[in-house]
Amino acid sequence: MSPKITTELLKHLRQVMKNPRYVQEPVQAYIVPSGDAHQSEYIAPCDCRRAFISGFDGSAGTAIVTEQHAAMWTDGRYFLQAAHQMDSNWTLMKMGLKDTPTQEDWLVSVLPEGSKVGVDPFIIPADQWKRMSKVLRSAGHDLVPVKENLIDTIWTDCPQRPCKPLITLDLSYTGVSWRDKIVALRSKMAERKVMWFVVTALDEVAWLFNLRGSDVEYNPVFFAYAVIGMNTIRLFIDGDRMMDPAVREHLQLDSTLEPEFKIQVMPYGSILSELQAVGAGLSPKEKVWLSDKASYALTEAIPKAYRYLTPYTPICIAKAVKNAAETEGMRRAHIKDAVALCELFNWLEKEVPKGTVTEIVAADKAEEFRSQQKDFVELSFATISSTGPNGAIIHYKPVPETNRTLSVNEIYLLDSGAQYKDGTTDVTRTMHFGTPSAYEKECFTYVLKGHIAVSAAIFPNGTKGHLLDSFARSALWDCGLDYLHGTGHGVGSFLNVHEGPCGISYKTFADEPLEAGMIVSDEPGYYEDGSFGIRIENVVLVIPAETKYNFKNRGSLTFEPLTLVPIQTKMIDVNLLTEKECNWVNEYHQKCREVVGAELERQGRHEALRWLLRETEPLAPVQ
Amino acid sequence: MSPKITTELLKHLRQVMKNPRYVQEPVQAYIVPSGDAHQSEYIAPCDCRRAFISGFDGSAGTAIVTEQHAAMWTDGRYFLQAAHQMDSNWTLMKMGLKDTPTQEDWLVSVLPEGSKVGVDPFIIPADQWKRMSKVLRSAGHDLVPVKENLIDTIWTDCPQRPCKPLITLDLSYTGVSWRDKIVALRSKMAERKVMWFVVTALDEVAWLFNLRGSDVEYNPVFFAYAVIGMNTIRLFIDGDRMMDPAVREHLQLDSTLEPEFKIQVMPYGSILSELQAVGAGLSPKEKVWLSDKASYALTEAIPKAYRYLTPYTPICIAKAVKNAAETEGMRRAHIKDAVALCELFNWLEKEVPKGTVTEIVAADKAEEFRSQQKDFVELSFATISSTGPNGAIIHYKPVPETNRTLSVNEIYLLDSGAQYKDGTTDVTRTMHFGTPSAYEKECFTYVLKGHIAVSAAIFPNGTKGHLLDSFARSALWDCGLDYLHGTGHGVGSFLNVHEGPCGISYKTFADEPLEAGMIVSDEPGYYEDGSFGIRIENVVLVIPAETKYNFKNRGSLTFEPLTLVPIQTKMIDVNLLTEKECNWVNEYHQKCREVVGAELERQGRHEALRWLLRETEPLAPVQ
Repeated sequence: MSPKITTELLKHLRQVMKNPRYVQEPVQAYIVPSGDAHQSEYIAPCDCRRAFISGFDGSAGTAIVTEQHAAMWTDGRYFLQAAHQMDSNWTLMKMGLKDTPTQEDWLVSVLPEGSKVGVDPFIIPADQWKRMSKVLRSAGHDLVPVKENLIDTIWTDCPQRPCKPLITLDLSYTGVSWRDKIVALRSKMAERKVMWFVVTALDEVAWLFNLRGSDVEYNPVFFAYAVIGMNTIRLFIDGDRMMDPAVREHLQLDSTLEPEFKIQVMPYGSILSELQAVGAGLSPKEKVWLSDKASYALTEAIPKAYRYLTPYTPICIAKAVKNAAETEGMRRAHIKDAVALCELFNWLEKEVPKGTVTEIVAADKAEEFRSQQKDFVELSFATISSTGPNGAIIHYKPVPETNRTLSVNEIYLLDSGAQYKDGTTDVTRTMHFGTPSAYEKECFTYVLKGHIAVSAAIFPNGTKGHLLDSFARSALWDCGLDYLHGTGHGVGSFLNVHEGPCGISYKTFADEPLEAGMIVSDEPGYYEDGSFGIRIENVVLVIPAETKYNFKNRGSLTFEPLTLVPIQTKMIDVNLLTEKECNWVNEYHQKCREVVGAELERQGRHEALRWLLRETEPLAPVQ
Repeated sequence: MSPKITTELLKHLRQVMKNPRYVQEPVQAYIVPSGDAHQSEYIAPCDCRRAFISGFDGSAGTAIVTEQHAAMWTDGRYFLQAAHQMDSNWTLMKMGLKDTPTQEDWLVSVLPEGSKVGVDPFIIPADQWKRMSKVLRSAGHDLVPVKENLIDTIWTDCPQRPCKPLITLDLSYTGVSWRDKIVALRSKMAERKVMWFVVTALDEVAWLFNLRGSDVEYNPVFFAYAVIGMNTIRLFIDGDRMMDPAVREHLQLDSTLEPEFKIQVMPYGSILSELQAVGAGLSPKEKVWLSDKASYALTEAIPKAYRYLTPYTPICIAKAVKNAAETEGMRRAHIKDAVALCELFNWLEKEVPKGTVTEIVAADKAEEFRSQQKDFVELSFATISSTGPNGAIIHYKPVPETNRTLSVNEIYLLDSGAQYKDGTTDVTRTMHFGTPSAYEKECFTYVLKGHIAVSAAIFPNGTKGHLLDSFARSALWDCGLDYLHGTGHGVGSFLNVHEGPCGISYKTFADEPLEAGMIVSDEPGYYEDGSFGIRIENVVLVIPAETKYNFKNRGSLTFEPLTLVPIQTKMIDVNLLTEKECNWVNEYHQKCREVVGAELERQGRHEALRWLLRETEPLAPVQ
């Protein structure tokens, strides 16, 4: 992977930063966040402005360009990748390390007195604006909204904003109709005494209306906003996709409805002016509810006294707790996904020794097997198919320049998942197709112990996920090893593979407490730069637990793995496992056999079934 | 314990809330926080305003009185105690439970439109003012500073503010001179480009000047503020204690000194006007550093643009990392403390069966043995001497009305500590002087497993203590048990028994990372309301750990117990311990034998030595 040469681009950007056609006053710094106008993590090609200007295309990062400097903040998952993709014009700012300055502190340290720092007000979340603007102001600088996106002005071949057809989901998938979701939302609004709710996150719009799209790769969402009043529903969406009879029927656009369920469809681009009109028409005490991560532009449309901002919206919280239909769908999706992976690993085992399987070939093969499964829609993220040293690049994606051939001498790490109409999957397995070294087995076993410690953890109702993060690290820590990423994220139901408001990470504190029905990933890892990467990831469902004393009726929770793919026993040093851990592995593999085995049988995939049976032979615990 | 009857007091308070002599405009609510003007946790009798108005005298709690209601917020340690001490005029607000409203939300729900909420601006921390005032304002109310403390106006027999003599500490105790501490502070100030630093916390003043006092029971501090400039030192302190030749010599008040080390002594009460003068004389870019927990009154004295607020001051952070002299002093103090407790437990073992030892007698006896030790100053907090159901009141203090007799049928919990001139101790042991039930042993053993899990934890440099909290709970959680308090707090060096900025608790996130030299407590527990309480607490020192891979040179940390008091093996169900846990107990007891045994021998306390040897017999691990 050779870095993108950005000398000319940066020169050009620095010109427009001073060009009165685009800025009222010259800006001495311009911030390029990674999100879009919906603060999405995964974005459409037209929104990949930070990747365009820097070359770094990981999922998280913020670029800041000043007259003298160009700097990129990203987290531990992307240190190596960013260093590879950016040329020497860029300074990498490693977030999470002690000596790395925050963006604000760095700006203060490099800017000349009384500088203007520009940013697209539609891209920057309101909470971030507030924090940055405060620090900058107290140092004598100004954060200013630049209406026209300056990257777009220099991005001559910028792709068009996608506008693809919609998928409607019926009750068998969603469990709850969009009308009932609106009713529940309005009751939350009444509780908080707000009159309006603005839906800005794409997955929240999709969830609320039981619709899916494909405007953004991997995330089945579509570009839209919604504004929900106590008696009105406005959906801001472009294109002729609203002419689709199935969509019209689903949303009952042509039916005679009670007025409070009548959806007014409006152009996507009219959200700001419509919201400004709402803001202008408010009576005292009429509040408007927005996420505090909504864009600065939309937040500013509502006068400050009328805003009701929360870190998590009621939709975000409701969406996280999966109902019976969604949970059953997720189970089905994970069984199909396991079938595909049994096929893949069986195939890899035969093909790898021939020396013809590259990381890209393996990733493509995984997609091929998944696409044979019922209700397959697309992948849920770019497949991380990495062998040897590439495995240590935490969010690696194979490209021709880096594409390595799998061999019997190196560890292979596959982190992949898919969108099925009934659920979203995300699974990581780390395999060796030859003989792993004692050190590789040792590291793998610590990671496995951490995985089990979280998966088998029992905790009281109301516990926040971040409190479980150190369980995943304890075995690694004992030997002086660690990994620089969180342990788990929320997973959507045929929606975004990363979603809030829960997760398992030392980095957050504001996560919502775990409750039965939430679905998160459990994915500790270990990475040896230049050598190998190990990660073991299951998607797990929060379920009630049986405990002896049940927390004085507060209730107990634990996890049930939805992912049912064998964990390679060849990589385990059984001497390092406790009896309880050994039993966990054996019971997990027994369940893989029963559930996935039955499905392989049903699908007539006998060779993969034989592979599954062999890979799930019980471990013999060491006495 | 019968509750305090507060009907008349509340009537009186509600009158002054409307009396123009005290308030510019009537206030519809008045907040009575628990702190003093220094936001101390432990306060002088003259500052116990919340206890005076409500009867509830636990260490944490905030009272709010409106025209109709009186409500008290406190945390899990105090639910039972507060319920016992308050009469029916009061509503208990159990913090940490899901359905308990915040003070702000509750005020909004009960206040009539456009209310004024009063508070003493010297008592409320600036960060809390900001948060409350924002919420109240957005609901149409106003938080207003009431200059005269309204409780003081109705508290006719309010005690005088204490003003006791000072103790000077030489280098053998402190390791660093006050001059060197000032130099280090000024270098931190220069780093952050601030010109002034305001020392508002009492323990920070004491630490900075290597002085101790006894104005507040249990905390060896004295009422004072300090304002440190780059070339000036101002100490605000009352009384003739500055006439003490030892103090004058220590502070070099009569020596010819470089002007930047010359201490100007000023009256305690002049801090506000002096700070306002500093605030008025600032040139642009001259910042003043304050804790964001400093009082609203002092914070407001500095114009907003000139304030530099941080959650932890550089003194707080420096104070937490003990130097070699302080660490050695803490070790010595803990050995002496262990001697006293061996004497006590040996004595209790003989006396309890006679039925003559009450909780108060036991507490007094503990103090008597401690006071025999060299450099003993006072207790470090009110001894929690509790048997049977009283043990479930987490911060119980025996009083004649509740005083229970120790017996061979109930669990006895003793949480106690002392101030020695060389260090501060805080230790909890839970004992049974008869035969514990299987359930009591089971619970005790889970608590012990949690204690060991924290004490033996290995973690990378830079880990925050809150990440270790769930280690302490895991064994309890597995059986559906938990405890409603944090696991550990920072401990001062002959200073406050509770200090920041580190600790081990699920409740904080803003704690500073642990580093070698920090000292915290490790004190998981389990409480069965109406039956018993169990807690096992050691004070532990953060030390470098040896690990196989040492976190790629990031460094490893672990804990070394400073407390060396036997853990009653009779209470342990050995079947529930792992081999590693058994070894931990045996090694810990071996160290108690060696270190404390030698000191008992030296002090000629042979009977206590025999008790120690018997109580530290190794456990036989179950195979």
